[in-house]
Amino acid sequence: MFEMPPPSPRTANDKSKVLIFGAGNFGSCLADHLGDSLHEVFMWSRDEDIVSHFNLYRKNPQFLKDHVFPDCVQAVGPEFPSAQMVQSMDVLLFAIPTQGVRETLTSLKPTLNLKKLPLFIFVNKGIEIGTQALTLDIIADTCGPEVAKVSTFISGPSFASEIVRRQPTSVSVVSLSEEHAQKASDIFHQPWFRCYLGDDPIGVELAGALKNVYAIATGIADGLGFENNTRAMLITRGLAEMTRIGTAYGASPLTFLSLAGVGDLFLTCSSPTSRNYTVGHRLGKGEKLDHIIDTLGSVAEGVTTSKGLQDILDDLGITAPIANAVYDVLHGGQEVETRARELLAWPPVKEFDLPSVGKPARHLMEKLGLAV
Amino acid sequence: MFEMPPPSPRTANDKSKVLIFGAGNFGSCLADHLGDSLHEVFMWSRDEDIVSHFNLYRKNPQFLKDHVFPDCVQAVGPEFPSAQMVQSMDVLLFAIPTQGVRETLTSLKPTLNLKKLPLFIFVNKGIEIGTQALTLDIIADTCGPEVAKVSTFISGPSFASEIVRRQPTSVSVVSLSEEHAQKASDIFHQPWFRCYLGDDPIGVELAGALKNVYAIATGIADGLGFENNTRAMLITRGLAEMTRIGTAYGASPLTFLSLAGVGDLFLTCSSPTSRNYTVGHRLGKGEKLDHIIDTLGSVAEGVTTSKGLQDILDDLGITAPIANAVYDVLHGGQEVETRARELLAWPPVKEFDLPSVGKPARHLMEKLGLAV
Repeated sequence: MFEMPPPSPRTANDKSKVLIFGAGNFGSCLADHLGDSLHEVFMWSRDEDIVSHFNLYRKNPQFLKDHVFPDCVQAVGPEFPSAQMVQSMDVLLFAIPTQGVRETLTSLKPTLNLKKLPLFIFVNKGIEIGTQALTLDIIADTCGPEVAKVSTFISGPSFASEIVRRQPTSVSVVSLSEEHAQKASDIFHQPWFRCYLGDDPIGVELAGALKNVYAIATGIADGLGFENNTRAMLITRGLAEMTRIGTAYGASPLTFLSLAGVGDLFLTCSSPTSRNYTVGHRLGKGEKLDHIIDTLGSVAEGVTTSKGLQDILDDLGITAPIANAVYDVLHGGQEVETRARELLAWPPVKEFDLPSVGKPARHLMEKLGLAV
Repeated sequence: MFEMPPPSPRTANDKSKVLIFGAGNFGSCLADHLGDSLHEVFMWSRDEDIVSHFNLYRKNPQFLKDHVFPDCVQAVGPEFPSAQMVQSMDVLLFAIPTQGVRETLTSLKPTLNLKKLPLFIFVNKGIEIGTQALTLDIIADTCGPEVAKVSTFISGPSFASEIVRRQPTSVSVVSLSEEHAQKASDIFHQPWFRCYLGDDPIGVELAGALKNVYAIATGIADGLGFENNTRAMLITRGLAEMTRIGTAYGASPLTFLSLAGVGDLFLTCSSPTSRNYTVGHRLGKGEKLDHIIDTLGSVAEGVTTSKGLQDILDDLGITAPIANAVYDVLHGGQEVETRARELLAWPPVKEFDLPSVGKPARHLMEKLGLAV
């Protein structure tokens, strides 16, 4: 079996104090990775039992249950971190669902010393329900444009259970500020956790949200009995749609070729354990959405993203046949087989037909005081 | 089970006479598809037994053995098709290995009526050994630039065994002549065989050849015991390399987002039955290349492409760490584990760093009398 080299030793200078908001699956694996990379890590949970269990046994009782975390990771909470604690940190890492980001940042704002900001890093994916806001937008609303402009986003094909076993993983690390993306990369990069730098957070965020809709489509096709050619077609045409939507929104088309784009799309669509894929697969097998959601326990993210995406598509005036079909099946009461047949009957088109760069990104950049 | 609608009926006007060169796995499935689409199909083989068996039983004794072909498909050969036969055709479809294209086109040339050319369609993938020529180049050398300029290339994620069962499949259909790509699409397009039009045959040809090298890399990683994150990383970073190489060669970067690009790469890299993946997987498990090739029966295409690609890389002055590593393992006698460790130790870089458009495509376009 292949053995990884040990992490390079750190000096006091390049060892960081990191506060992680969220002790879920992904937050925990990143806590482990940062501890394994010899940083000093504090993982905040609002659940007192998790905090005390973690500090007693070095295990998270809810996620990655068998994994023993390094000593340099400790849990904090359940109270929201104090101003003193926040101001002693080099890095704030947000590993909470997108729907909780506005509330968490609103609580955080009064604790910040705006003259000496820590590094802000976000790993959540998805669009805010109702507002259709990207996280960049939520950061600007709550902490101000100055924080949004230097925030960094990390995204890519990365199963938590593989990260804690040092399985080689690569991610996109992007920020409107090249300097801050570089700093985030310096903190996270290891031979088994490779960081690739980029400057298009809007594209990375859109890719992370939209991929869940296409994972549902892929699941539906598999559920209907379609095989490898069809799955490759859906992933590729889904990627073309994501690229078209992203470009119309104002992202760079090349971002969809990235680890956060095609990399994560590929992983999500080929993973039968993904919740979004599972929703699609069961729809394809003929189950009703209500029943699937009831038995899944909670709503898969792609189901709500599909609704928000439809609003974005209407707004942009963009053609996206696969996303439209997923919406019609999930929210328009249409039959899976009928809608699949209609998709296949779509007339032949040019493979790439990119729209001109659109308004939403321009508005967001204006909000941040950045010229486009 | 999902049922496909029947093909639309054809008038005498849109029914084509198609001569297919090659009765291999892919040629046979396309003969079937074109017959199923109500064209009149002639499949040429230089093997007399195949021709007579096929015409007697409507089955190919070597490929897709259980499949019964439609009545409108007949085998011809083993003599090379006559001028009379060639000149009665609407379409010539070349489904032979790239290494045989020069010879076949040289034999074909004297049979052509240059004033009334049929449609030329190519489905082979790969680079000519020794010359590193693309098929577009070989066509220009043998039949002249006028034929190359109107030739069409079809490529995409398409297992033959699924095509003959009408599993939904999509392909890129590209030509320097938009009119000819459109004609090819009219002939091939069905709801279960969707054609997407493009104008970058150089990018499509490069993608079709290079993907085999990255399939070897993916196989190696799986053989070494790496899991989903690593596979997604290799596919994505392989795609980034292919895009960089293609752009330096003179292809459009967007072509690598196409069905012929990421679609086919994804299918090849996630198929344990692919010969290239298998070579990699066995190398990763510690077997020696000579032994693998001996027991495989013949050389997997990626093994020779890796050699030709190294010459192209040297010529272009392009950095391609994964392709270099595959070359070093296949042809430089380096150890798989050592080379994998070196790859992972590669310093962090920008995710996209596209070179300026390069010389090879410019030379090829000049050869075809096309300005760039």
